[in-house]
Amino acid sequence: MLRGTTEIRVRYAETDMMGIAYHGSYLPWLEIGRTELLRAHGLPYAELERLGYRLPVIDVALKYLRPALYDDVIRIESTMREKPLVRLRIDYELFRGETLIARGHTSHAFLDRENQPIRPPAVFMDAVKRWFAGNAG
Amino acid sequence: MLRGTTEIRVRYAETDMMGIAYHGSYLPWLEIGRTELLRAHGLPYAELERLGYRLPVIDVALKYLRPALYDDVIRIESTMREKPLVRLRIDYELFRGETLIARGHTSHAFLDRENQPIRPPAVFMDAVKRWFAGNAG
Amino acid sequence: MLRGTTEIRVRYAETDMMGIAYHGSYLPWLEIGRTELLRAHGLPYAELERLGYRLPVIDVALKYLRPALYDDVIRIESTMREKPLVRLRIDYELFRGETLIARGHTSHAFLDRENQPIRPPAVFMDAVKRWFAGNAG
Amino acid sequence: MLRGTTEIRVRYAETDMMGIAYHGSYLPWLEIGRTELLRAHGLPYAELERLGYRLPVIDVALKYLRPALYDDVIRIESTMREKPLVRLRIDYELFRGETLIARGHTSHAFLDRENQPIRPPAVFMDAVKRWFAGNAG
Repeated sequence: MLRGTTEIRVRYAETDMMGIAYHGSYLPWLEIGRTELLRAHGLPYAELERLGYRLPVIDVALKYLRPALYDDVIRIESTMREKPLVRLRIDYELFRGETLIARGHTSHAFLDRENQPIRPPAVFMDAVKRWFAGNAG
Repeated sequence: MLRGTTEIRVRYAETDMMGIAYHGSYLPWLEIGRTELLRAHGLPYAELERLGYRLPVIDVALKYLRPALYDDVIRIESTMREKPLVRLRIDYELFRGETLIARGHTSHAFLDRENQPIRPPAVFMDAVKRWFAGNAG
Repeated sequence: MLRGTTEIRVRYAETDMMGIAYHGSYLPWLEIGRTELLRAHGLPYAELERLGYRLPVIDVALKYLRPALYDDVIRIESTMREKPLVRLRIDYELFRGETLIARGHTSHAFLDRENQPIRPPAVFMDAVKRWFAGNAG
Repeated sequence: MLRGTTEIRVRYAETDMMGIAYHGSYLPWLEIGRTELLRAHGLPYAELERLGYRLPVIDVALKYLRPALYDDVIRIESTMREKPLVRLRIDYELFRGETLIARGHTSHAFLDRENQPIRPPAVFMDAVKRWFAGNAG
């Protein structure tokens, strides 16, 4: 299991006329969560793209438990529970202080530059093996 | 069962560096789908807000089957399968021409101006009864 | 002088907690204005990109005179006043009904796929000549 | 003169199919710039809203000198050059490392909860006096 934590602050641009963060604003937050999860484990997503790989979202689900408000600091806890094979799944929990305000997951496929499915790059699979081995130790 | 169809055209702003529509761009499209579903049945969402009701998204799930590209015309088919009680669920199918490119659903709660759960307004429940009665006829 | 008119409807996603359309939401509307201006004159922007050209915004200015509200229909009037040479400038006026609510302009450079400045493609300059000749007639 | 510096990291959501940050993405960055400028000087914008004031953008201008790329760290330098009276103007310079990539300004009006123009609150004017006195000292 691989975990990462990062924080965002709710932007005015991300609110809507309900006076809370627009529900669609959370998807870029999840994106930041998984980006920082990968970066913290030595594998920046930008590097994967430079190598010719893409990781589009093929599936997202999200439950909104409490509203997020303008200027709130939201903590994003991202978890990769299983070694990715052809697909990669990340789970997320979002907190304001100690309060869980949302949770969900995204699934991703590895594609090449022509948008064809492809196995994850060796650099990624090697990293994954180290990560999960380290966890098990 | 209540159905509505509307179309959007993918904006440049909605694309990302993968060259396709960003996955988060779809949530405003679903919002347009349900807005037009309600409008087509005589109940504009803006009217509900003026009456003091809000319908925040409490749950979203979406599967991305094919990418949507810049300038594509995407048809959004929105369906309310069941009479809403305290919650309202809408299902969506997104098409480019005859090709299904994404499907999902959103769930909504009725809240009052103080963000407290509340039963749907009479004007809404009356409309729903008419809609579903009409369908059954 | 080349003119085009198109309409958008303000999305819930485009509002902010001030209860009005977020000022940043207008930039995609201008983008729709110039896209439809080009399309109406037989030159879809998507076609320009397929030919290897890009027209990034290098300059934007916008004055907000009246708020735009959720579900408002906003009319975008886009005007190309001068034949583009290395730069292209579009002016915009936004209306709700007969009320002018915002006005501004964007400037654009022609770039090739490597993001180097380039002269507009022949297909574009030919079209421009026809447009401005037609106007003068 | 009042200055503040803050940083953002370009989100994937903020890129477009040109492979660079979408020009409209910069407006939320300017918003973060001025928010942090006010916060750093002891006057959080959220506090102004709680007091019943709003500071809508009435005017924006921005020049894009170099593209911003995904995952770039962009430094936003925000400056209030003059004491605000009925209007407030902020100037911005955006940098990647030492390279200036964009510059512009926004102007703001003070409005009350009914969106009527209003003089800035005493707490704001007092703070402004201290800030500019401090600078002159």
